[in-house]
Amino acid sequence: MEKKILVGIDVGGTTVKLAFIDEDGEIITKWEIPTNKSESGRYIVTDIGATIVNKLEEEKISMSNVKAVGIGAPGFIDVENGLIFEAVNLGWKNFELKKELESILHIPTFVDNDANLAAVGEMWKGAGNGSKNVVCVTLGTGVGGGIIAGGEIIHGESGMAGEIGHIASVVEGGAPCNCGKTGCLETVSSATGIARLGMEAVESNPTGILKEKWEANGVLTSRDIFDAAIEGDSLAESVVETSTYYLGFALANMSNTLNPETIVIGGGVSKAGSYLVDLVRKSFNQFAIPKVAKETNIRIATLGNDAGVIGAAWLGKQRSQ
Amino acid sequence: MEKKILVGIDVGGTTVKLAFIDEDGEIITKWEIPTNKSESGRYIVTDIGATIVNKLEEEKISMSNVKAVGIGAPGFIDVENGLIFEAVNLGWKNFELKKELESILHIPTFVDNDANLAAVGEMWKGAGNGSKNVVCVTLGTGVGGGIIAGGEIIHGESGMAGEIGHIASVVEGGAPCNCGKTGCLETVSSATGIARLGMEAVESNPTGILKEKWEANGVLTSRDIFDAAIEGDSLAESVVETSTYYLGFALANMSNTLNPETIVIGGGVSKAGSYLVDLVRKSFNQFAIPKVAKETNIRIATLGNDAGVIGAAWLGKQRSQ
Repeated sequence: MEKKILVGIDVGGTTVKLAFIDEDGEIITKWEIPTNKSESGRYIVTDIGATIVNKLEEEKISMSNVKAVGIGAPGFIDVENGLIFEAVNLGWKNFELKKELESILHIPTFVDNDANLAAVGEMWKGAGNGSKNVVCVTLGTGVGGGIIAGGEIIHGESGMAGEIGHIASVVEGGAPCNCGKTGCLETVSSATGIARLGMEAVESNPTGILKEKWEANGVLTSRDIFDAAIEGDSLAESVVETSTYYLGFALANMSNTLNPETIVIGGGVSKAGSYLVDLVRKSFNQFAIPKVAKETNIRIATLGNDAGVIGAAWLGKQRSQ
Repeated sequence: MEKKILVGIDVGGTTVKLAFIDEDGEIITKWEIPTNKSESGRYIVTDIGATIVNKLEEEKISMSNVKAVGIGAPGFIDVENGLIFEAVNLGWKNFELKKELESILHIPTFVDNDANLAAVGEMWKGAGNGSKNVVCVTLGTGVGGGIIAGGEIIHGESGMAGEIGHIASVVEGGAPCNCGKTGCLETVSSATGIARLGMEAVESNPTGILKEKWEANGVLTSRDIFDAAIEGDSLAESVVETSTYYLGFALANMSNTLNPETIVIGGGVSKAGSYLVDLVRKSFNQFAIPKVAKETNIRIATLGNDAGVIGAAWLGKQRSQ
């Protein structure tokens, strides 16, 4: 008997990432298709069905060898029933994702939030290294996250768990956040937040590399600021220290209550690597219970864009058992 | 066939609480025995075994009708194996609680941390009202807690999860905590912490009811401060507002990441009831994501000292299935 495979799918606003993955989490083949958002995203699922059927033929894998399909999508999801309440980016509203895809492929299909599945991917095959207790934080345009406790994704009562970006971090005088509050972690630790802190800093104190970059480009990016800090620019260093202070604070408080084995930091900002980890660690150790500080690993994500499809495959494997 | 029963046990430093509980979580009978801490607590388990055998005879319940035993203990526990690494209050060290009690009663026995089981008790039959996502916080001498997510106790990687009392809350200039950090929630929201805040307040501003109580007794208790605040004493009000501000902050940040249906507040300080809840709610709403603020219930614990034995019975029921 041939080995069974899993299909992992990560539906994004621009592309749908897909992969055939074996039961050990190794990618057999991966590819992507554009996300067709026309007519409220009604063609997305038929496109996914068709590309899987084609790829199975191409790879000479029989449909009967597919054990399960896992699929990650953005937005607010009923994971039990695979229903997307709303995914604004895709145009889906009360969209029966599980049911629609099962009606095409006739393979058991399971749905979860894309950030949760990226966390699971890192838990299974990435920086989480198989640990059953992992907190993942993604530092991109916003700050997202996923929590795995006891080997299970934590969803919370209405699927809102893992909103690490909205941990109140700047207690007084914080910047406004899209969520309606002020001082959320996202306002200081996302790429956008770091850029904002950098531009505020350079406006009040126009010196060094940041001043040059700002005058040259009229804008600063998170990347500019980290690069300058790594080169030893003191204004950039102070911005990065502020940002990582709050990130360490928020992650320490999560760890004081969740006691993860590993915290995985992903997203564009995580490209700063060990420089970032060392600064986060400094603040983390200040705010975490000493035993927790000692025992918790802080690592950079290793799977990049593959985390979502690998996590989706895990979901398919786990829930079809 | 007679209905099966569960035995719930809550081992404390002064007394061991026990109950026979039916599978719906209703107490059939409850009683307690003193905790015999002599000789490193070696008699505690034999005392428990003997009192259960006696009570079964008294209640005319056959041993074969006992489905499972659940037992909560303080300290640092390997819940898989029912091993107590260390329970300083009882004198136990590397104590095989599950094995010892099973060798006396020959009934499947399951062990967890007492604070976790109190949380489970409130989840099952108390203020948690059957919800699968509950955060319990106990405001006593310290601040303890338990987290239930997806109907499961969250233990974390090394059993340290739920250390709500050590959430960093007073970010700068906080008081020292027993854990080695400063500014932990416990330093401001435990009964001890509230008393400390009250005494500091009355020392720098000796007025009103707190001044009278302080001069009369040489000390202030958390109860004195809440009573005075409820009577409208402005110094006491400011102390209670400070304390509940930090509690609301910590609980909001937990809720931003865990999205519980209900937060249950127990322990001695919770006797302040709706006065306490209203103040915590005010701060909670400031720091929680608006949707989370709207959807999360904050309630006072209803089971009092019975929470531990009821939670222990739930553990026995769940793990023996």
